[in-house]
Amino acid sequence: MANHSRRSPDYQPELRKNIVTREWVIIAKGRGKRPSDLVRQNDGAEDLPAHDPNCPFCPGGESNTPPEVFALRDGSAKNGPGWKLRVVPNKFAALRQAGSDQPHYEGIHICRDGFGAHEVIIETPEHNLDLWEMEESRVAEVLEAYRQRYMAYESTEALPYVLIFRNHGAQAGTSLAHPHSQLIASPVMPQQVQVEMQGAAAYWEYLGHCVFCDILEQEKASGERVVLETDHFLVITAFAGKYPFETWILPKRHAIRFADISEEEVGDLARVLQTTLGKIAAALHRPSYNFVIHTAPAEEHNTRAYHWHLEIFPRFTTLGGFELGSAIYINIADPEDAAEYLREAEVAVGVKAASAL
Amino acid sequence: MANHSRRSPDYQPELRKNIVTREWVIIAKGRGKRPSDLVRQNDGAEDLPAHDPNCPFCPGGESNTPPEVFALRDGSAKNGPGWKLRVVPNKFAALRQAGSDQPHYEGIHICRDGFGAHEVIIETPEHNLDLWEMEESRVAEVLEAYRQRYMAYESTEALPYVLIFRNHGAQAGTSLAHPHSQLIASPVMPQQVQVEMQGAAAYWEYLGHCVFCDILEQEKASGERVVLETDHFLVITAFAGKYPFETWILPKRHAIRFADISEEEVGDLARVLQTTLGKIAAALHRPSYNFVIHTAPAEEHNTRAYHWHLEIFPRFTTLGGFELGSAIYINIADPEDAAEYLREAEVAVGVKAASAL
Repeated sequence: MANHSRRSPDYQPELRKNIVTREWVIIAKGRGKRPSDLVRQNDGAEDLPAHDPNCPFCPGGESNTPPEVFALRDGSAKNGPGWKLRVVPNKFAALRQAGSDQPHYEGIHICRDGFGAHEVIIETPEHNLDLWEMEESRVAEVLEAYRQRYMAYESTEALPYVLIFRNHGAQAGTSLAHPHSQLIASPVMPQQVQVEMQGAAAYWEYLGHCVFCDILEQEKASGERVVLETDHFLVITAFAGKYPFETWILPKRHAIRFADISEEEVGDLARVLQTTLGKIAAALHRPSYNFVIHTAPAEEHNTRAYHWHLEIFPRFTTLGGFELGSAIYINIADPEDAAEYLREAEVAVGVKAASAL
Repeated sequence: MANHSRRSPDYQPELRKNIVTREWVIIAKGRGKRPSDLVRQNDGAEDLPAHDPNCPFCPGGESNTPPEVFALRDGSAKNGPGWKLRVVPNKFAALRQAGSDQPHYEGIHICRDGFGAHEVIIETPEHNLDLWEMEESRVAEVLEAYRQRYMAYESTEALPYVLIFRNHGAQAGTSLAHPHSQLIASPVMPQQVQVEMQGAAAYWEYLGHCVFCDILEQEKASGERVVLETDHFLVITAFAGKYPFETWILPKRHAIRFADISEEEVGDLARVLQTTLGKIAAALHRPSYNFVIHTAPAEEHNTRAYHWHLEIFPRFTTLGGFELGSAIYINIADPEDAAEYLREAEVAVGVKAASAL
């Protein structure tokens, strides 16, 4: 169990079901941790220089990465300095475009070569900027790079799923501090994605509409888990979130895949993502976090039963044997309280603002 | 991503499917980490005293726990010192026997009161002994206490699943160092358990026998993932393990539930568990770890398609956005190499041997 020790004995836990994946979580309802009670898991960015000559992702380190597959440059030569954003294959890739795309067998066991792609989206030349501290137009460029790299893989039949995610801070599993996101194109459909697709499809089959649209409507009406709302997006803490302060960014328009995002929505999402990450940084003292874009796989583009969205997981807790053995997570922060803290958190986005926190 | 930075660029990853749960993992095949390459995540037990007057689980601290529900005593009075093993409700329980056992609804969302049980099995009066350092007969008593506490809950209809697990060391999510295991009796069937039951049932339906029996047979024949074998148990590294050095203890006799273990098997399991945990401590410098007993839920006692076992997860890596978003884990240690290291690791079990490591 993670950090239960300060909880009052009259605490009453609550079980909540994720209506899409059917996973149960245990919520510390009514006695959840306040932001100041959470163990500080700092992202470490305050102590970083703007440039690190040993960082392969800083300008000047281009020869220490594989050759770039995408970049934003104003006329400068490939694989040298002078870029605003670079996408390169991961040098230590979890999956690579080598080997066979067919399964093989060891008796009853099934294996595949680790055939696929693993890219790094280097978001900025500056070594010490988190996304919410950049100029808004540059975040829009990061999102546009995500979209283009999705498009690059989604017609590859051997790679049915593309996942874009961001690890920020040591507690979120990152090994390089320089601001970056990652893309993995997988030869197998991840079980987590299958479960979510199946949940959304079952809901549509029963009720004839999208479960995420229904969540949007209910959360807007109740308001108790709303962090912020714009023309195109609603930001909520997850009703059955696995992680303390787990936050979802939901597009209001029903769209099954991220890559169909419009230019206007990209601009709005840049603002919304910055504000949400900035509020999390302000309320929780710059925690480590992950975010993941959930989008339908290419082969499901004919379905109407999915709705892309972005999930953010601040990382405070260590999973124990109960979580590993049951997949029931214990969330030590009440989602309604968390939404209130985030609504009230004030932050100036678009400026390097570490000293203000 | 967790700690990929020392991996050679010509590393070839492999995808492997867990044949029971259908989950894929990525294995660092052929270039996996050696034990000495794994970041040391010490369990901290070497620095602990044999008695800590502030520990609620040490003798003398009995009034700081809820009243005991089970104990091994030679005539001493309940809830005082003089015990060999104590079971108490968790003071900061994730689930409690309070509230309703019926679901309620918030619009489309489903909730339940956190009705259930959460117990702590305090394994020994000594503050600084890991299971593998105790006398073998005392480990058998711990296992017998597990069995009795299972039996106490498994006929409770409102609590369909009982999970026994152990968190050892800070990286495994423990908050109290004193040697203990935990039991959670849950009002809902954990999704992880459902998935494993369904996988075993589907295999039986296709092939007419138990998937775990088939794994046993294949692993014995190949030998490459065998750590040790006794009359009643086979210990293997998992073919598609999620965690580096993930190790399974499989009973050779097909039995769907742990509570049906015989007295002779309890004695053998005590030896096997000590030797396995001791080998992990010796090969990996006393890492933090979890173990979990997987057993069939009470309502599935009529099935033949399950086979109880114990899974051990040494904890070295931090999960990143890829794992959280896909449930595809990246295992940085090759299971065949891991088995070889564990086979060769020498350890003296049954003695407090920290200084020898």
